[in-house]
Amino acid sequence: MPENPVLIIGGGPAGLEAARGVADLGYPVTIVEKEDRLGGTPIHCDYAALTPNLINAEEAMGAMVKKIENDPLIDIRTSTEITTASGNAPELQVTLKGQSGEEQLNAGSVIVATGFKHFDPGKETQMYGYYEFDDVITLVDTERMLKAGKFVRPSTGEPPKQVCFIQCVGSRDRQIGNQWCSKVCCGIASKEAIEIRKMLPECRVFVFYIDMRMYGFWEDEIYWKAQEEYKINFIRGIVTEITRRGDQVVVKGEDTTMGRPLEAPMDVVILSVGMEPSEGTTQMAKMFNLPFESHGYIESIGGALNTVVTPVPGIFVAGAAGGPADLEDSVSMGGAAAMKASAFLRKASLKVAA
Amino acid sequence: MPENPVLIIGGGPAGLEAARGVADLGYPVTIVEKEDRLGGTPIHCDYAALTPNLINAEEAMGAMVKKIENDPLIDIRTSTEITTASGNAPELQVTLKGQSGEEQLNAGSVIVATGFKHFDPGKETQMYGYYEFDDVITLVDTERMLKAGKFVRPSTGEPPKQVCFIQCVGSRDRQIGNQWCSKVCCGIASKEAIEIRKMLPECRVFVFYIDMRMYGFWEDEIYWKAQEEYKINFIRGIVTEITRRGDQVVVKGEDTTMGRPLEAPMDVVILSVGMEPSEGTTQMAKMFNLPFESHGYIESIGGALNTVVTPVPGIFVAGAAGGPADLEDSVSMGGAAAMKASAFLRKASLKVAA
Repeated sequence: MPENPVLIIGGGPAGLEAARGVADLGYPVTIVEKEDRLGGTPIHCDYAALTPNLINAEEAMGAMVKKIENDPLIDIRTSTEITTASGNAPELQVTLKGQSGEEQLNAGSVIVATGFKHFDPGKETQMYGYYEFDDVITLVDTERMLKAGKFVRPSTGEPPKQVCFIQCVGSRDRQIGNQWCSKVCCGIASKEAIEIRKMLPECRVFVFYIDMRMYGFWEDEIYWKAQEEYKINFIRGIVTEITRRGDQVVVKGEDTTMGRPLEAPMDVVILSVGMEPSEGTTQMAKMFNLPFESHGYIESIGGALNTVVTPVPGIFVAGAAGGPADLEDSVSMGGAAAMKASAFLRKASLKVAA
Repeated sequence: MPENPVLIIGGGPAGLEAARGVADLGYPVTIVEKEDRLGGTPIHCDYAALTPNLINAEEAMGAMVKKIENDPLIDIRTSTEITTASGNAPELQVTLKGQSGEEQLNAGSVIVATGFKHFDPGKETQMYGYYEFDDVITLVDTERMLKAGKFVRPSTGEPPKQVCFIQCVGSRDRQIGNQWCSKVCCGIASKEAIEIRKMLPECRVFVFYIDMRMYGFWEDEIYWKAQEEYKINFIRGIVTEITRRGDQVVVKGEDTTMGRPLEAPMDVVILSVGMEPSEGTTQMAKMFNLPFESHGYIESIGGALNTVVTPVPGIFVAGAAGGPADLEDSVSMGGAAAMKASAFLRKASLKVAA
């Protein structure tokens, strides 16, 4: 049995799955989370239900957390960050800084599962008026209201009668430097649209999109359901301007399917903000000398054929730290990284024994 | 050390990654492939280059195969099928039928990595004329020509001057019962379009699509590159009919962006056929009593939060046997399944020891 644990950085879906996996293989784990609670973005950003099956985010993440609690092989450190790292796996010297001060840890291997951050729509040259109009909100603000069980116009506190989503805010956009598609926003927006319609059956809901990227089973499990059961209106269009008229927000642009100008008053406009590498992802990449791929996420070697292995021996990446990822991606990568990190420890201990 | 190996069924990307992973964790593997060669669909369907980085399929899969050859922990059985299974993991009795006859194997755990098959466009009420016109071919036929280094009109053997792809053939289609999006066809078509333009710089290439599902980094790594560097024309449109005029094939439908009828003569029409569960996937599901999810693939429990675990203890699924999957999905799931199967064996051996 090796003495140095696998250090897992980040307690979201990828990190939690990795922690369970490493311990199931019989190796020790130290999982570090900078927030005071495990669960990752679904918890810290107050997600309501998860895509695609609309399971409650608190319950789903709670079940993942429960699976790693009270395991003698798993040391959980919340409110803790990594401040220094030196040496090489399987003898990495790492400093953990928690609420009770600093502590040294020798890590045998590392899984970086530091995830993403939501795009800040203020960056987009104010075009969408996020910081200007109370009733222009984001996917994340919407999750918070849905979780609280009350979806209202922020300006009045009243239920809205007409709501729209604008897709690809901070994604597929060379102007702001985010050339990637964030993969999940089409699914999340459609899911939120369904939740709004369930909560407010009188409210009309529109989704303005470029391409609806409802890949795999999302096609019928979310997209068709949204259209057929929940009567959500998907309009292929480009929104070029958001202004105020009276107490409403007016969305202007072009309906590219009908080939005509689009001008629609809305009570709430929801910006479908994309993913960017989180600060933690950027910091940990620098800390462990991991190269960035061209979009600023952590690079894996071998492209599609090696999703969790970085160029630095013994250091692995899982989930959205490696690029836009849905929950399936994060969980599969977490499991794969658990295998790779455990195999790395095993090989290292065989070498020592030989 | 447990004596019963992990039985991995299928020697494609998911199965190969799983085999390497299980052996790296110190557990024995028997990997069974019904074809006479490992490598899976990229090899048996003669893929040219892989998505997204256009690496040579023979070389990429060859490297994966090489990683598992000559490993004392890995028993490779090509030209072999599973004909019976009984009992429960970790004491499953399985019959392997190879070229030298039948053989019994006790398997400790199973990873089903039996993949997908390409949609047969003959099924689609002949609308696309696949069996009628020589110059109507599929993504798969195109791969074969690209791999051979010569892309020609099948009817004449001459290089085509005008080629189009038609997306979503056998996907997103309730008529034929395939309600899912096959996830990869937008990327594969764009990749093939690039390869055609590289090979035949004079040839004009069109892609008729509903939504271009170029998620994640495919957006700029393939889609933008296809448009900007390779001048491929992406047209949002619906194709309703394919007929012959003289020695060309005429594509009729609607350009939904321009809102006008579409009629274009083509030298070659390429049908972007989607994924369906392979026969092996259906057979192995029945053999091991694995439930099908609603689309006919093997169901995992826990939806997005448990991608490789089936309801049957000790039996796992990886890659496109569980639903439409790209290479990243298959490799991550293969790695995750390796972890789960090895952890299952470990737990079983701890129980025996206790």
